[in-house]
Amino acid sequence: MKTRRKFINSLLILGTGLFASKKASAHPAKSVLIHQVYFWLKNPNKDLKGFIEGCEKLVKIDSIKKAYIGTPAVTERRDVVDHSFQVSLTVYFDSIEDHNHYQLHEDHKAFIAAHEDKWKRVQVYDTKIK
Amino acid sequence: MKTRRKFINSLLILGTGLFASKKASAHPAKSVLIHQVYFWLKNPNKDLKGFIEGCEKLVKIDSIKKAYIGTPAVTERRDVVDHSFQVSLTVYFDSIEDHNHYQLHEDHKAFIAAHEDKWKRVQVYDTKIK
Repeated sequence: MKTRRKFINSLLILGTGLFASKKASAHPAKSVLIHQVYFWLKNPNKDLKGFIEGCEKLVKIDSIKKAYIGTPAVTERRDVVDHSFQVSLTVYFDSIEDHNHYQLHEDHKAFIAAHEDKWKRVQVYDTKIK
Repeated sequence: MKTRRKFINSLLILGTGLFASKKASAHPAKSVLIHQVYFWLKNPNKDLKGFIEGCEKLVKIDSIKKAYIGTPAVTERRDVVDHSFQVSLTVYFDSIEDHNHYQLHEDHKAFIAAHEDKWKRVQVYDTKIK
């Protein structure tokens, strides 16, 4: 019984270790591309909720590794910080091919068709992680 | 013995489940702030390597949850995509307080002092994840 408990405890520690190492890793080997998009909406008061719902549907596209949808954080106002966007969309891909699959996906085209009249500016930065 | 194996297998599945859910989760509850910085260097040919080494030291600051250092990805040239930066620094924090701790940290001040002559432009976007 004691040996069994010890072994089970080791497995639990192993599980926690995997979880912790994922959290702490600065450069997970597989996340090679960050597709970062900022949106400025014409009528945020009217359209923000519906637009975010559109983003939530968009990030279900199958080639996406992980995705974050956000709004400006209330950090200190500084000249170098742009808080003027309304929605930030951060999408991770394992490869350029996965990114291209997303760009050409029907659901991406549907998102653009349904929401492009809502934004006045889009700014994209694509980063390859070292 | 059979029961023990079954129980151990359940633990292994539980461990894998935690790991997989971390990978697949679009909005991990604890990642509340993405501090995204893009740098345009004056002399990338001369300074890129040293600058990235500086970033690698910078992201060791203790309040950082996770960080990614990157360079422009070779995605399609489109009007909305800005590939002109040289270095992208993506830093995740659990809270505004952790972000402020980073901003005021000695190692952050040392990074700025050591490298600010290398960049001609810095653009920051701070996002609160939904």
